[in-house]
Amino acid sequence: MPLTDTQSKREAHVSTAGFVHAKAVELGKHVLRMTSTAGSGHPSSALALCHIVVELMYRRMRYDPGNPWNPNSDRLVLSIGHAVPIVYAAYADLQGAVGVDRASPTRLGIEDLADLRELGSTLDGHPNPAEGFPFFDAATGSLGQGLSVGAGLALAARLHGIDKRIYVILGDGESREGQVWEAADFIVDHRLNEVCALFSCNGQGQAAPVSSQQSPDAIAAKMAAFGWNVVEVDGHNPDELSSALDRAEVSDRPTAVIARTIKGWGVESIQAKNFHGKPIPPTQLDAALAELDETEKRLGAQSTLSLRPPAPATPSGPSRERGERTRLPSFEDACRRVGLSAVLEDKKLATRVAFGVALVALGDLDDRVVSLDGDVSNSTFSEMFARKHPDRFFECKIAEQNMVSVGAGLAAGGMIPFAGSFGKFIARAADQIDLAAITRANLKIVGSHCGVSLGADGPSQMSVSDVAYFRSLTRVEDGRGGIACHIFQPCDAISAYRCVELMADIEGLCYLRTFRPAADFVYPMDEQFEPRGFKQLRSGQHLSLASCGYMLHTVLEAAAKLAERGITCNVFDCYTLPLDADPILEIARNQGTAILTIEDNYSGGLHAELAEAAAQRGDVRVVGLTARRIPKSAKTAAEVFSHVGVGLEYILQKASELVE
Amino acid sequence: MPLTDTQSKREAHVSTAGFVHAKAVELGKHVLRMTSTAGSGHPSSALALCHIVVELMYRRMRYDPGNPWNPNSDRLVLSIGHAVPIVYAAYADLQGAVGVDRASPTRLGIEDLADLRELGSTLDGHPNPAEGFPFFDAATGSLGQGLSVGAGLALAARLHGIDKRIYVILGDGESREGQVWEAADFIVDHRLNEVCALFSCNGQGQAAPVSSQQSPDAIAAKMAAFGWNVVEVDGHNPDELSSALDRAEVSDRPTAVIARTIKGWGVESIQAKNFHGKPIPPTQLDAALAELDETEKRLGAQSTLSLRPPAPATPSGPSRERGERTRLPSFEDACRRVGLSAVLEDKKLATRVAFGVALVALGDLDDRVVSLDGDVSNSTFSEMFARKHPDRFFECKIAEQNMVSVGAGLAAGGMIPFAGSFGKFIARAADQIDLAAITRANLKIVGSHCGVSLGADGPSQMSVSDVAYFRSLTRVEDGRGGIACHIFQPCDAISAYRCVELMADIEGLCYLRTFRPAADFVYPMDEQFEPRGFKQLRSGQHLSLASCGYMLHTVLEAAAKLAERGITCNVFDCYTLPLDADPILEIARNQGTAILTIEDNYSGGLHAELAEAAAQRGDVRVVGLTARRIPKSAKTAAEVFSHVGVGLEYILQKASELVE
Repeated sequence: MPLTDTQSKREAHVSTAGFVHAKAVELGKHVLRMTSTAGSGHPSSALALCHIVVELMYRRMRYDPGNPWNPNSDRLVLSIGHAVPIVYAAYADLQGAVGVDRASPTRLGIEDLADLRELGSTLDGHPNPAEGFPFFDAATGSLGQGLSVGAGLALAARLHGIDKRIYVILGDGESREGQVWEAADFIVDHRLNEVCALFSCNGQGQAAPVSSQQSPDAIAAKMAAFGWNVVEVDGHNPDELSSALDRAEVSDRPTAVIARTIKGWGVESIQAKNFHGKPIPPTQLDAALAELDETEKRLGAQSTLSLRPPAPATPSGPSRERGERTRLPSFEDACRRVGLSAVLEDKKLATRVAFGVALVALGDLDDRVVSLDGDVSNSTFSEMFARKHPDRFFECKIAEQNMVSVGAGLAAGGMIPFAGSFGKFIARAADQIDLAAITRANLKIVGSHCGVSLGADGPSQMSVSDVAYFRSLTRVEDGRGGIACHIFQPCDAISAYRCVELMADIEGLCYLRTFRPAADFVYPMDEQFEPRGFKQLRSGQHLSLASCGYMLHTVLEAAAKLAERGITCNVFDCYTLPLDADPILEIARNQGTAILTIEDNYSGGLHAELAEAAAQRGDVRVVGLTARRIPKSAKTAAEVFSHVGVGLEYILQKASELVE
Repeated sequence: MPLTDTQSKREAHVSTAGFVHAKAVELGKHVLRMTSTAGSGHPSSALALCHIVVELMYRRMRYDPGNPWNPNSDRLVLSIGHAVPIVYAAYADLQGAVGVDRASPTRLGIEDLADLRELGSTLDGHPNPAEGFPFFDAATGSLGQGLSVGAGLALAARLHGIDKRIYVILGDGESREGQVWEAADFIVDHRLNEVCALFSCNGQGQAAPVSSQQSPDAIAAKMAAFGWNVVEVDGHNPDELSSALDRAEVSDRPTAVIARTIKGWGVESIQAKNFHGKPIPPTQLDAALAELDETEKRLGAQSTLSLRPPAPATPSGPSRERGERTRLPSFEDACRRVGLSAVLEDKKLATRVAFGVALVALGDLDDRVVSLDGDVSNSTFSEMFARKHPDRFFECKIAEQNMVSVGAGLAAGGMIPFAGSFGKFIARAADQIDLAAITRANLKIVGSHCGVSLGADGPSQMSVSDVAYFRSLTRVEDGRGGIACHIFQPCDAISAYRCVELMADIEGLCYLRTFRPAADFVYPMDEQFEPRGFKQLRSGQHLSLASCGYMLHTVLEAAAKLAERGITCNVFDCYTLPLDADPILEIARNQGTAILTIEDNYSGGLHAELAEAAAQRGDVRVVGLTARRIPKSAKTAAEVFSHVGVGLEYILQKASELVE
């Protein structure tokens, strides 16, 4: 009987909307309580999201709160990370699984919300999956990064052949971050229609109202100009939200839902002025909770429903056993495979080309390996991978921030991404790399043209602070038995090839520095390398020289010249950081000689590594030559080396001083 | 007689267009020759700009090539820095002034173009004013930064009451960089209609054609959605270019000229495939030059005109003598002035608030001081400046890359900009800061909430790699007798106040780290501080403790506890880097005791500074406690200190070990 059908549908509909309102109020109360108890947090931003979160987490997303690791789950990226208490409240209500150890998860309960921001809690101040909240895929909170992460998750799902939708919630003020627009371009380029961006437009920033440039209309116009399907809704209207997400599912373009929201929804007393980033004082908590009750009454929010999210497909087993060590073919085989046999005769090849050789071989071996590049694949040589494995190469164009965060998303989706550009431009993504480190993302960053050896292009293309930045990450533990980052700085093609192999085996962040010039082979083709390792290339009595990367060739030249003058040197190739420095220090200590480090970048790298280790004991001298002035263009690497004070003549002079 | 008038106008018009074409060809030839001679460079990208550059540099911009320092000059920012040879050619043709020393400039001649990219040349591979090319205001070449620099120049001109137009040339592929869109928002927000963005849309990137997301139509649609006046032109049609720039001058919005250009214009043989970033081989140079001759013939390009750029207004004298030392009022006066008398009784204030106090006092004293903030002015306390000097405060919203490059532009315009945000978010602009360092920009960066002492918000808000990054800049000379950067890490409000004073006096890049928690006064109100200085706060016999910032308070607590146990310590407040470390090392050496450094950030800061200095001699032990794991949220600073291994108990334990 049609009439009854319609009636029952209407009732179900009313009931569903009632459920969303009622749940929004219920979760909103948890938000107020937990932030008041914590004494900090952003309840007002969280309340703006309460309907969006209920719609997504109870009705829309296909996932099992008991198994957030199911790869078939739809995913939520909370780019506006400070609004996280509303997600914690929903997840606790749904008894979601938490815990650092996937083998023994526990269920989050409402009572756990009171521990928000405690040292022992999995509920960090901002989304932080690595501290035990696996519902999220990436640390967020430094704004503007989530849409890129979502794009990476979508790419990974596509590679796995999984039908998965990715929801990303952003703030209006947050959309000022340029990275959001990099991501918007990328998602259209790669037709990632399974990504849905929801903008919470509450009109309030931290210090002041958001600019008219970030009004709902402005964001809608921009997203349309960027090629997105745009739907504008009342962010507190369950029907409009649901209808918008329905439309997103059938759109042939990615969809942006522009949701007008109210900061502090349901609690009028905190809406009047800009109430940002602070909890309601305990003495005013009951009054605020009563306001939410009033709101519930006003809306007639009630429901007999008890909705749970729709289930995802049952997970299938992992495609590849962890723990197998990656074993690349011989360097000769790998070169031949890509038509580079001639270099085996020349015994000379740029490290950046060797990276390309290794990446192809790695891609042949392991289909989790993917490559990202920022429109310089013919400089970084990721183009070799692009040719061999076009389905696993993602051109990110000139937008490094997005590239790195897409990489973090791909890593969360089980891939092993290598993201490359000039080392100089990798600096654009320093903050994104840091967030990837917090996530413990299995991400490999590749910076080409490092140091000053690219010569003629000048300082705007020279990566000279990168080692200091990345080394700071190598000095901290990741809380899982590893460290936050490994750096590799190979001096020749053979070591570069093997460093890429090591990177694939390390579960976590790695940074490879490659260099522009072709370089003679230093090692036999079958040489092996290790994390924290180094190689002794010469032995001597009077001095130890330590270097790495392309610079090492000048150091070897210096050592030969010094030998002619009767000064014999140990020469160490310190191809990785952190470094097990003790054996190097021990040799110097036993010989009673000094160590001279030479690097064509600013300080904070190898010199700091050895000097800090030496100063621990205070009985070995370590002197460093690093670039000591801002570089400029010159025709050759050697000229720039000399200009910045690390050229051959400086090495000879300093070495002579140290043996006097 | 109207007829003759029209005729003569038409002739003049034909002649002008002819001049532009002829000059484009002439300069194009220089571009081919200079890059072929240099053996590197980007002639094809430069040729795409030849008409735009002739229109701007010969007809449109009001400037005197003989005096590029005239503050009344219109300015050109070449955001697409690799296209610079075309500007060099025009500037040489106009005999523009070059040289590092403004007091004794030389005139650039056509013959100098052959020195492109030579060590001794002022013609660096990418725009680099600091190496002697003062026509430019900022180093560019790391893409996407120029529009922001232009915005800063426009703000400075407005503050000086100068009618000045700023032209920024960008590439189409470059417009993928998110910072371009941050700048687009900022320029509309601040109604900087005097900024004109010219997009050279040649359709070719480095590795491949640009995405359809960066087609001329797409960029036009985006710029319109961002609120700009948009004009689309043929970038090789002098009339269309001229008309577009006429329209820009009268528009009530900033104007984007979307110019369809041809990469390798005039030289068909290099247009067929993507010819990027390489010179024409010397053997093919004559043929390419002949192609340009053919192009000239085809266009009938000829002119009897010899146009020179219109003159700017005569410069007036500098508003303020350099060399005067900034002298802030007493700390007490400054506090009273902003209604903070109570803290003088409490003797407790957060360093970030003291920064606000100092910035207001500085602004009172010097009208070159301006403040920029990224929507956190109520956290960084630049809001105090905003209230007192609203005309010199620029809200940049949540877009740190743009903020820093706007700061570089303001500095180039003679201002002293302080750009602030959370230290964590300053990392977003690492590459922009590096370009500012290359420019030798007089820019002050202020990072608040540094280290892990903000506690509850968690790692996505904690700045822990920033010291390593900035310290790498402190270790290089700027080629002008200074160093590339000074870092300040004050432990209390009084030192914070004086550090800001020091920053204002240093001509160059500085970085101030402030901390979230309120901190007891350590110093008397009238204490003075110096660049490279430190303070000894306690004397002892058994150990030296060195620290800085908020962490120092825990170190003082540790020293007191150790004294109770009979272990007396020297305590050093190392409030700045670089640091004159010798006196500290000398004390330890003379006492035969070790130095323990304590920092609540990743390594690469103070510990590296002292360890490197100690290892130079190898006769003092320096042991460092730095954050040794990735932090997480906790309720108090002390809890996070302990979590990452630098808490009070760790200091006591390590100190005890060192005196055993």
